[in-house]
Amino acid sequence: MWMRKLILLALLAPAAAFATTPDKTASLRDAALKDDVAWDIVEGLTTEVGPRLAGTEAEARARTWAVARLNSLGFKNVRIEPYQMPVWVRGIETGEIIAPFPHKLALTAIGNSGATPAAGLEAEVVLFRTIADLEAAPDGSLKGKIAYVGNAMKRAQDGSSYGYYGKARFAGPNIAAKKGAAAIVIRSIGTDNHRVPHTGNTRFDEGVAAIPAAALSVPDAENLERVFARGKAVRMKLVLTPRNIGTQESGNVIAEVPGSDPAAGVIVVGGHLDSWDLGTGAIDDAAGVAITAAAAKRIMDAGTPRRTIRVVWFGSEEVGGYGGRDYLRRHGGEPHALTGESDFGADRIWRFNVTVNDAAKPVVDRIEAALAPLGVTRGDEPATGGADIRPLVSAGVPVIDLNQDGTRYFDIHHTADDTLDKVDPEQLRQNVAAWTAMLDVAANAPEALGKQ
Amino acid sequence: MWMRKLILLALLAPAAAFATTPDKTASLRDAALKDDVAWDIVEGLTTEVGPRLAGTEAEARARTWAVARLNSLGFKNVRIEPYQMPVWVRGIETGEIIAPFPHKLALTAIGNSGATPAAGLEAEVVLFRTIADLEAAPDGSLKGKIAYVGNAMKRAQDGSSYGYYGKARFAGPNIAAKKGAAAIVIRSIGTDNHRVPHTGNTRFDEGVAAIPAAALSVPDAENLERVFARGKAVRMKLVLTPRNIGTQESGNVIAEVPGSDPAAGVIVVGGHLDSWDLGTGAIDDAAGVAITAAAAKRIMDAGTPRRTIRVVWFGSEEVGGYGGRDYLRRHGGEPHALTGESDFGADRIWRFNVTVNDAAKPVVDRIEAALAPLGVTRGDEPATGGADIRPLVSAGVPVIDLNQDGTRYFDIHHTADDTLDKVDPEQLRQNVAAWTAMLDVAANAPEALGKQ
Repeated sequence: MWMRKLILLALLAPAAAFATTPDKTASLRDAALKDDVAWDIVEGLTTEVGPRLAGTEAEARARTWAVARLNSLGFKNVRIEPYQMPVWVRGIETGEIIAPFPHKLALTAIGNSGATPAAGLEAEVVLFRTIADLEAAPDGSLKGKIAYVGNAMKRAQDGSSYGYYGKARFAGPNIAAKKGAAAIVIRSIGTDNHRVPHTGNTRFDEGVAAIPAAALSVPDAENLERVFARGKAVRMKLVLTPRNIGTQESGNVIAEVPGSDPAAGVIVVGGHLDSWDLGTGAIDDAAGVAITAAAAKRIMDAGTPRRTIRVVWFGSEEVGGYGGRDYLRRHGGEPHALTGESDFGADRIWRFNVTVNDAAKPVVDRIEAALAPLGVTRGDEPATGGADIRPLVSAGVPVIDLNQDGTRYFDIHHTADDTLDKVDPEQLRQNVAAWTAMLDVAANAPEALGKQ
Repeated sequence: MWMRKLILLALLAPAAAFATTPDKTASLRDAALKDDVAWDIVEGLTTEVGPRLAGTEAEARARTWAVARLNSLGFKNVRIEPYQMPVWVRGIETGEIIAPFPHKLALTAIGNSGATPAAGLEAEVVLFRTIADLEAAPDGSLKGKIAYVGNAMKRAQDGSSYGYYGKARFAGPNIAAKKGAAAIVIRSIGTDNHRVPHTGNTRFDEGVAAIPAAALSVPDAENLERVFARGKAVRMKLVLTPRNIGTQESGNVIAEVPGSDPAAGVIVVGGHLDSWDLGTGAIDDAAGVAITAAAAKRIMDAGTPRRTIRVVWFGSEEVGGYGGRDYLRRHGGEPHALTGESDFGADRIWRFNVTVNDAAKPVVDRIEAALAPLGVTRGDEPATGGADIRPLVSAGVPVIDLNQDGTRYFDIHHTADDTLDKVDPEQLRQNVAAWTAMLDVAANAPEALGKQ
């Protein structure tokens, strides 16, 4: 009798060959357009924890909050995986143009900035319109001076302009230090026009002493350039007292939706739990941890998937990606089927890209069909993952990028303005729907999802 | 022979009865749509002077700058009319929610705020959703506590919502002080969602000791209300160290376009030269002094008008209207034909209102015709003037309001974000064109423009 049933099931193939169907995926996807779980996570994390700089007690409070929330959502194997990391913290930060026209500056220290004397540093400012101009300055020509790099960032939907303009922050301080500058100020790497400067990390080469490094708000940078246009010597005073507080504990928070087939490999999705300290990290990246967890919960609530979905809320992404590397160190030996990260705000997903092996192409086709009704179309670029999963991706794990619309992302990125009100609940839900559909297809796919 | 000429002239009436014609007005108006004078004033004042709080050395620098600029533009009788006034200056201002969730606050002291102890003030916070709720609190019920007033401002094109929502700032601190509160914090009177709090003046009744009073940025206020929604006691720490520095010198800067007919009365136009100290006072009110001066210069350059146009860049508007009262004290006895002030940003003029006598009605009809091509139509409300000219208006001087679109004005008003980039050069030029047209008609009108 059961043999006849089995034969009957086989006749219903190919649908029965999958643990999900296009109809089931569509149904889960559309239900997710009414999701409140993601909003509640963003609202809770920003309100009850707020800013959570990596390695500080605030990030530890965030981990405690995360464990409680992920447990209450019903996830399994919820745990913290701690690791140690060096920590830099902000101090006093003020600045002003001293001459020719006195003007107080809205600025903020860049992560890993050196400190000025407590009484401040006053020096002449040298204008560089681009990072290339700074690179071209003769060695030693900046001795005792403050380098200023303009470099007005333009918007791009896919965020790709960050790489070009961001060099002023990523590399500018190191270049200026090597040329003997006393300090560097840059125009914020941002596309807004508010008095809210954009922080973010920089790094100095081994053996190069960190110099004070700050970002001016865009209106302050524009004002400074107008002052330069008057042709008079510009003097600036900076007081920046950040400091390194040594090695501290950070950690990743992990939660799972256990799958029925351990051999099929784990799907790792998530975002980062830490944030910069100026805002409350709503779009960067409470939204990302919320979207991916909300989607995973929807798969969990629909029944056991074939593959385990591992939700990782990474620690210390902003300050150097320590969480992502720790994850690889601990889990690199386990079979991973796929990974994806949400770390580009909370606006709608408009495109997806993949880097997978040929055997997975039918899975990608089904993902494409499932996402199209959300206005998400397949791109033709390789997927790269976010900073947290890049170690996994580099180790050969297949990766999918669900690309969010970044047109306004750099208005807010790394500023005090990264607060809950910047999250649009409707677009957040579209994100949850896209991740739900993708996860339903991928977690239940019968195909092998092995190396890239 | 000259009698025949006179008769001929009379036959050419009515056009010849006016010192201007609709064609000449239209030509001046349309040329003003290419104006650069106003932009150059706003750019110069914000870049070369910056913030200019009334009664401080910054406002004195602004007066020096103004005299030089008005002279270089060719105005006559350029002068400073000084007066004395009490001055309040900002000190340190920080705040944080201590419990239940620690959170640093973006806040700013309200003008005339009292100071906390240097080490700060920590107290429980009591939530009032509206100023009416605060008024209803029993006397003494706030003893030792910090009152918080919510009150989320809504936009209005004509700015009329400022009166209703602004009460939390104008009157809230005095009410809270009388009920025994240790301090008051309010949601900023603003329509933006940035971490840039809105300052502005308040006043305490004679005999009521000033308490510390601060405005939270809108995102901070919304966060605080979400914290209250958790139902736990909220404690806040405030450090506010503003102080009164006694009587200082302020002044009005005056420039004239002398008219041919002193008996026809002076037309007073202008804005205020002082600004709040957080931004550079671009929309409030470099734009206003720039628009009115640029328009007056266009009339001057077109030939001598019938009436003297007096451009007044008033001092100390923001902190109590001392400049407007000083003007009336000095000049109230002179014949004034009309007054108008530009003090509502730099966005386009969409409407005008007048309060004039019946004899002036034909003049108003001609102004209506001259402004219509700019998209400016006549309203049916009485004109009131800005704060600087209100003393003149109260004394019976006819007044015209050229109403600017204020839809986004309270996004920026009294914040650090009041910077040059907020001024749209095209809309600024439309303002100059409207003021030019109005002034050409009014300054040359043959009708009597006497009392209202």
